[in-house]
Amino acid sequence: MFGARCLLLALRRCSSAPCPKHKQAARLRVCEALEAQEVAGDIKVQGWVRSVRSQKQVLFLHINDGSSLESLQVVADPTLEHRDLTFGSAVEVQGKLVKSLHRMQNVELKAENIRVVGPCDTLMFPFKPRERQPLEYSRQFPHLRCRTNTLSSLLRVRSEATAAIHSFFKDNGYVHVHTPIITSNDCEGAGELFHVRTSNKVQEPGENSHFFNVPAFLTVSGQLHLEVMAGAFTQVFTFGPTFRAENSQSRRHLAEFYMVEAEMSFTESLQDIIQVMEDLFKTVTSIVLSKCPQDVELFHKYISPAQKGRLEQMLKNKFVTIPYTEAVEILKRAPQTFTFQPKWGRDLQTEHEKYLVKHCGEVPVFVVNYPYDLKPFYMRDNEDGPQHTVAAVDLLVPGTGELCGGSLREERLHFLQSRLERYLDLRQFGSAPHGGFGMGFERYLQCILGVDNIKDVIPFPRFPHSCLL
Amino acid sequence: MFGARCLLLALRRCSSAPCPKHKQAARLRVCEALEAQEVAGDIKVQGWVRSVRSQKQVLFLHINDGSSLESLQVVADPTLEHRDLTFGSAVEVQGKLVKSLHRMQNVELKAENIRVVGPCDTLMFPFKPRERQPLEYSRQFPHLRCRTNTLSSLLRVRSEATAAIHSFFKDNGYVHVHTPIITSNDCEGAGELFHVRTSNKVQEPGENSHFFNVPAFLTVSGQLHLEVMAGAFTQVFTFGPTFRAENSQSRRHLAEFYMVEAEMSFTESLQDIIQVMEDLFKTVTSIVLSKCPQDVELFHKYISPAQKGRLEQMLKNKFVTIPYTEAVEILKRAPQTFTFQPKWGRDLQTEHEKYLVKHCGEVPVFVVNYPYDLKPFYMRDNEDGPQHTVAAVDLLVPGTGELCGGSLREERLHFLQSRLERYLDLRQFGSAPHGGFGMGFERYLQCILGVDNIKDVIPFPRFPHSCLL
Repeated sequence: MFGARCLLLALRRCSSAPCPKHKQAARLRVCEALEAQEVAGDIKVQGWVRSVRSQKQVLFLHINDGSSLESLQVVADPTLEHRDLTFGSAVEVQGKLVKSLHRMQNVELKAENIRVVGPCDTLMFPFKPRERQPLEYSRQFPHLRCRTNTLSSLLRVRSEATAAIHSFFKDNGYVHVHTPIITSNDCEGAGELFHVRTSNKVQEPGENSHFFNVPAFLTVSGQLHLEVMAGAFTQVFTFGPTFRAENSQSRRHLAEFYMVEAEMSFTESLQDIIQVMEDLFKTVTSIVLSKCPQDVELFHKYISPAQKGRLEQMLKNKFVTIPYTEAVEILKRAPQTFTFQPKWGRDLQTEHEKYLVKHCGEVPVFVVNYPYDLKPFYMRDNEDGPQHTVAAVDLLVPGTGELCGGSLREERLHFLQSRLERYLDLRQFGSAPHGGFGMGFERYLQCILGVDNIKDVIPFPRFPHSCLL
Repeated sequence: MFGARCLLLALRRCSSAPCPKHKQAARLRVCEALEAQEVAGDIKVQGWVRSVRSQKQVLFLHINDGSSLESLQVVADPTLEHRDLTFGSAVEVQGKLVKSLHRMQNVELKAENIRVVGPCDTLMFPFKPRERQPLEYSRQFPHLRCRTNTLSSLLRVRSEATAAIHSFFKDNGYVHVHTPIITSNDCEGAGELFHVRTSNKVQEPGENSHFFNVPAFLTVSGQLHLEVMAGAFTQVFTFGPTFRAENSQSRRHLAEFYMVEAEMSFTESLQDIIQVMEDLFKTVTSIVLSKCPQDVELFHKYISPAQKGRLEQMLKNKFVTIPYTEAVEILKRAPQTFTFQPKWGRDLQTEHEKYLVKHCGEVPVFVVNYPYDLKPFYMRDNEDGPQHTVAAVDLLVPGTGELCGGSLREERLHFLQSRLERYLDLRQFGSAPHGGFGMGFERYLQCILGVDNIKDVIPFPRFPHSCLL
């Protein structure tokens, strides 16, 4: 049998079934016809030419429409060749879909008519057939790099992962909330903020100098707004863009990136939050692997061969949990020398995170119960001591480092006094113990695909000195 | 039988099945037990108290956890009453779920233990039991209004509609793309832009005065970025926030709102785009109606009684398509006087839109082929004349007015010359005929629910002079 995706490609514009509603029925008919060694009815395939190979007797084309990594082979009479029929051109091919004799593909299209709807000047086009360019090269062409195999695979994986994240939460009874992008809050002093202003001409004379009457920023996290919603729904989530105006040239940071955030009411144990994080990672990754096996394979084959085995390990094993205090002890006993000496009360550095993950056998590690003084005000006081901690958790993953962060939130009014008025209001009216976490979506994609630079896992990266398109 | 949502509420924290994975199994067990008139095992329900009614013999509570409009009735011994057990407090009730004898509900919880985890000062709390406040009143409390019936219904509908939009496109083979929020483009001069800047202290001396080296704005539309993607995928969509810095105090505009946008390659007919718009509206609305019947009913009963019948009409009938030129003729022949006189070449005003929808029998109307001079550069020239038009379409719906806008895009290089360089680049390399549309998500919610003010269909509204939380 042939792959459904490849067939979908062929059937997308199948002339016998122009309506999306009938696609399924048409697919079955074609499957049956092909299994019975018959030819399918007339089909029209549309896409971009990935290769042209002209022989004396026959013309071979490969057409791709973005629905899969695989292209459809078109077999045509050489008389159908046309000077505009080049790599990169947009074509419509009409013909019959037949079972292929070639062992590498299941179906091929016997062309009866080829129409070039959009030619492509191959000399000017920055990509060439059968050339694998480094990701850095493609990044210069944000408007064209989606036509390369690597980026189109990435975009399919990203789309599937997005859908899987929505369905994971929906299946588990979470309500989705669009937390605001423009906000007058600075969630946790999580970093430098972008300011949102209007051009001066919008302001009318005598008006307050701010459009919103108050200074407005781009959100760094939807957490506070999710906490609002967690006062009416026991489980809520958001999945949207967040921003940092930090001037860092890093492979792990962007000025605009996506975060998955969840908040759960009536949660009194960090373990409940840890369980959701582990389930989310494993469920979404399993769905992506089953929906886009070829796309993930491309990354594991050409971009990061080590990641395939690591990912299998991550899915197979239970994630490890270690308290921060124990983590520091492990680091102190480590046979290696660190640039930053591990010490209770200090933040874990990337070198420490890497060591801990290795120490635990290259599986994801939850580090829990961080020092009180290291974490923001809203995290729940463990009331322990003298090594005073809060119920916070970070998830460290092989290769990528910190992927998620979460905590129980301080629900007790008297622990929060003299803080934000509205934040206190939430605690005053039916405050339930709750907690939540956030996962960086680009970090997640870096992790499962083994992509080194975060700029290569987002369609239009924004970072200092760059905002192309 | 009792409703699944109500049961889900009771089972969410069912002590016999703490793991989400076993919820389904537990649900079946409880269903069977109840059908056999037996009592279910011990259950722990968590939520917020919606009413307390104390009688001599028995204490009645209604508990809501946000999973449905319906609350769960708790029946307890009056000795379990506690002074903190008030409207708005967060409670955990442990007991047995039994079949209710009351005809209005299917199950009730016989409490064995009640714990108030978060008291609520009812004097300070801005909402009172059994009081229906106007939406304007609730809007003053963005951090608490989600606890009212109306807003919690709205948020459930919004969450279901969001999921339905994602699944509509996914089921039809579209790839989801996160188009950027910060952009250096002004898509179509669609309105005033918000500028994105850093505070001055981030800039290092000698640096370019912009974080991104170029002026950066909040996006007004993801269309150009979707068009980039439509050069590699035949069908793409995005669903994210868009922004307008317009100083309008309107019931139909927000500074931050959500748009669903789709782009389809190899589309040469406006009819194909119209079909997707109609399918999207009908499919998503049917899903919302089937998943949240009570929540939609609340709006149709208390907020906008006229909308229920209208919505049924919209779903039952085929939408109407009329060319702009014909629309102007209809308006000219209208027996009513308009403030703005209809004339070929002028924009349709709200009064015109309303008349056209009424004229067509209160069903949604697609107006197609607008004057060339009214529409932005990227819309496809119909090359007709002397009344020169472009292949544009607007969808007008009863009650709400303009809901969607779309067009075929100009794919022909020579029609676009002297425009954006990158936009031209797209046309130079395998340019396929394509088109797309956008739908305002808040307008959509206003339309199906009959909500007059757009500020009441978004969790945290942003508009001139207001950015609460």
